[in-house]
This record gives sequence, C-alpha cells and structure tokens, in this order.
Amino acid sequence: MTTTSDSGQRPVFFVSDRTGITAETLGATLLTQFDERQFRQSTLPFINSAEKARQALEYIEHTGRSLGTRPIVFSTTVSDEVREVLRGGNVVFLDLFDAFVPQLEAALEAKSSHQMGRAHGIADQAVYESRIDAMNYALTHDDGVGENGYARAEVILMAPSRCGKTPVCIYMAMQHGIFAANYPLTEDEFESRHLPAALAPHRDKLYGLYIGADRLHQIRSERRRGSQYAAMGQVSYELRQAESLYKRHRVPYVETTNRSIEEVAAVIMQDRGLRRRSF
Amino acid sequence: MTTTSDSGQRPVFFVSDRTGITAETLGATLLTQFDERQFRQSTLPFINSAEKARQALEYIEHTGRSLGTRPIVFSTTVSDEVREVLRGGNVVFLDLFDAFVPQLEAALEAKSSHQMGRAHGIADQAVYESRIDAMNYALTHDDGVGENGYARAEVILMAPSRCGKTPVCIYMAMQHGIFAANYPLTEDEFESRHLPAALAPHRDKLYGLYIGADRLHQIRSERRRGSQYAAMGQVSYELRQAESLYKRHRVPYVETTNRSIEEVAAVIMQDRGLRRRSF
Repeated sequence: MTTTSDSGQRPVFFVSDRTGITAETLGATLLTQFDERQFRQSTLPFINSAEKARQALEYIEHTGRSLGTRPIVFSTTVSDEVREVLRGGNVVFLDLFDAFVPQLEAALEAKSSHQMGRAHGIADQAVYESRIDAMNYALTHDDGVGENGYARAEVILMAPSRCGKTPVCIYMAMQHGIFAANYPLTEDEFESRHLPAALAPHRDKLYGLYIGADRLHQIRSERRRGSQYAAMGQVSYELRQAESLYKRHRVPYVETTNRSIEEVAAVIMQDRGLRRRSF
Repeated sequence: MTTTSDSGQRPVFFVSDRTGITAETLGATLLTQFDERQFRQSTLPFINSAEKARQALEYIEHTGRSLGTRPIVFSTTVSDEVREVLRGGNVVFLDLFDAFVPQLEAALEAKSSHQMGRAHGIADQAVYESRIDAMNYALTHDDGVGENGYARAEVILMAPSRCGKTPVCIYMAMQHGIFAANYPLTEDEFESRHLPAALAPHRDKLYGLYIGADRLHQIRSERRRGSQYAAMGQVSYELRQAESLYKRHRVPYVETTNRSIEEVAAVIMQDRGLRRRSF
C-alpha cells in the first residue's frame, strides 16, 4: 500500500536537455503561487536522448509511486522524442516548448529549428568573452580598487560597507555582462561635502545603495560583534551621511533592505538605461 | 504606410511584475528555436499595476506599428488585471501563468495565491544570507587563497591558469549557493606526482577543469601576447600534466572549451551530487 498525496510530499522534477536552469527558473516562479512546503524538487539535466528520457522517467515514476502521488515534471526539452517519452509517463507534464512553440510558429510563420542548446561557434565565443571580461572587471574594480579603470565602467555603485555593493556588481556582470565597479563610502568621504575625487569625473555612472539601519547593524554585527564598526550609532551616522551625499549630488539610489540581488540590479539597470544581455 | 514584417525586425518584449529575469530566460530559450537575427528585444520590469500595464502596452503597440508587425510579448505577471490589459493589445501574448497555472491548480487541487514575487520575511532573509555567504566564500577562496577554509568547501576546482575556474565558482555560488573554492595548478605542482599538499586532505571535493590547447593559447595570448605563459608549448605541457594528475588521482574533470559557464557548473554539480538551490 502506498501513502496518499495527503502525506504532503509532492515530487517536482526539472528536466532539461541542457543545464536545467530554464526549467528551474520557470518552475520556481510557478511554484511560488502554491504552498511551497509540499514540494520536493530535483533537477535532471542533460536528458538529451530517448534512452536517457526512459531512465529519467523510470526514476520519476518510482519516486511518485513511493510517495503515492503523480510527480510534476517541468520540462524544457527541444527533442520531440524525449518529450514523447516523458509525456507518456504517469506524471503531470508541463513543457515550455509544447506550451509556446505552436503560437510562436504561427506568429512568425516559420517552423522552429528543434536545435538543442544555443548556436555555437565564433559569435558565441565573443559573447562568452564579453561576459568573462565583465566578471573580471567587477572582480578587479571592487571596493574602491582600480579607480583608473572607471572610464570603462557602465555603472559605479557607492555605499557604506556591507550595503550589498559587491554581490550586485558581480550579479550584473554575470547575468548581463555589465561593467560594474563599486566604491565604499567611509568616514573620510563624509568630512568633505564633495563627491570623492575618484568618483567626481564619472557622475553620470554613479548609483547609491541604501539599507535600513537595523539591518546594517545586524549584518555588521555578524561580522564583528560589539565593534565600533557595527555599533548602531555608527551605522546610523554613515547611512545619514551617505543619503545626504546622494541627495546633494543628485546621485540616484535604491534601498536594498528587502530586495533580492536580482531586484536591486534590475532597478539600477532600468534607472541607468543599461542594456540587458542574455547569456 | 507601414513597412511589412518582411522588413525583418520583430520586436519582442519581456514584461514582468518583478525583475524580468524569468520572462527573459523563458523567452530566450524559445527564441533560440527561430532565426534570432530578426528579434529586437526589450525588457519591461516592475509592471505591477493596470496603469503601468497600459503605459507599457502603449509603448509596445507603438513599436509594433512603427515596424509594421505585431510585437511578441513574453509575460510572467501574477496580476490578472495586468494580464488582462496586455492580452487586449495588438500583440502575440505569451504568458507563463496562463500557460501552466490551470494545469497546476488541477493537479494540486488548490488555487494559486496570485502573490507577487516571492515570500518575504525571516526565511527569505536566511536564504539571502546563505547566498551572500557562498559568494563571499568564492571570492575569498579564489586562485589558491584561503586554504584554511577548504574544510567548508563543497567543491574545490583545480586547473591551470585561465581554464575558467573563477567564473564557474562564482556562478555556482550566486546561482545555487554552493561553497566553491579553486586552486591553480602551476609548474611547481607538476614536478611532484602527488596532489598539492593543500588539496590532498580534501580529495572527495576535488574537480578538475580541462580546455583545448588552442583555446587556452588564444585566451592567454589575449592577456600576455608573445609571453612564455601563452606559448603553445607551455600551454600543451601544462594541460598534459594536469590531465595526467587528474587521472592518476582519479579526480573527475570536465572540458570547458565549448561549454558555457552554466553547462560546466551543471556537469560538476551533477557529478558531485551537489544540491541546487534556487534564489
């Protein structure tokens, strides 16, 4: 006797002929609309032949039987053959290509190519390199280092320590190939009412980060508990000074307190009109 | 008179109530199935009210009229109201929730919550921090630095210089919260037939990268043209030595030559059974 689905565990599989990233992304977005505690998620990447699909399906169905419920399969698989196998299983089969390709073919008056993965070759190599260049740039222009390279920056983030500059820069580089530098605002900067000398020539590229004082106090305390650096008074002072610097010099800024890295990056890129590339 | 769609430019919009990442990801995956040169892509993030939807639609339809073709709209928008507005436009409307939520509701015997974005609060904060921790770990355990922290690593990549260690580590940290360190293999390591002393205690976490000699020669030449470091003989020697080290010590390895960062990461995580987290 198997348990019923009331036991609460619903297996979800992300199946892909490549990395599984697209299947995970779309599945995650959809699953947030339901009670997520029930889902037990697994990714099965590189399922690119009927044989691998049969093995994957066997595993998926086995999991379903042992939990007494039909597994949900999010699939992004170009191969008709692979989809055919998965569709025949005792699963809830949700495939990106099934859902949208017919409408796209009608709109574009063209057949889809059924090509696996992206095009390869020279063009791709150039795209790959521009992404790596952007990541290297972010890594070598972090935390005020590499001021001489600011002319190449598309955006320069400024903020007090631990407001989230580094992850946002790296994210923009990795996800969108943006050349993003960042510069820490320290007490020295606040004594003058001017923009830091390294930043003044690049004012059109500047963007400030702000964060709630409670949150910054908490973050800094995890790093150096009881230090002056983490003290509430110090944190509040730095944030007040930073905000007034942003306002005085009309530097746009965004609060990061309750935003994910993705959201902060999206706000900055939209405000600064930065081109979003897909990799 | 407007031009016809034969003029070749087909506007594609990614519309989202949040960052637009999901819409871009699913759209990019689908568009690779068609001739991509025809598409002119834009992302419209943070469209989270009927009013913003009307403004967005006006812009989308204007673009369509000026190119003489119906724009394609990929949407990941939870709000029924927003979708209603967009669906009513002169566009090819492809929405993730329209496509899959009815099937999910039927399978789960539950109504979707229509909540925008992800859940917030403490749980999210913890997830956010684990991701930031992973990124800090990758940044502070790059290129052989921070050996003392290897006990915390989930995977340690090893390879000669410029095979792609750093971007893959940072990607795994950012996308999946993996604690990934990396260690450069240099000539010193090849003289002994042993694993480098820093790595020997962690052999279950090791993973090698390999790359075609032509490609590595090209990458290194861009960095230091004409140098010994970039010379074909040197590059071939290092790769031969690295590969024999991997084989001798049964370190699994993957060739990065024609793989994207995502693909290399997916192969490593699958081989090492590393848990994929979604953020």
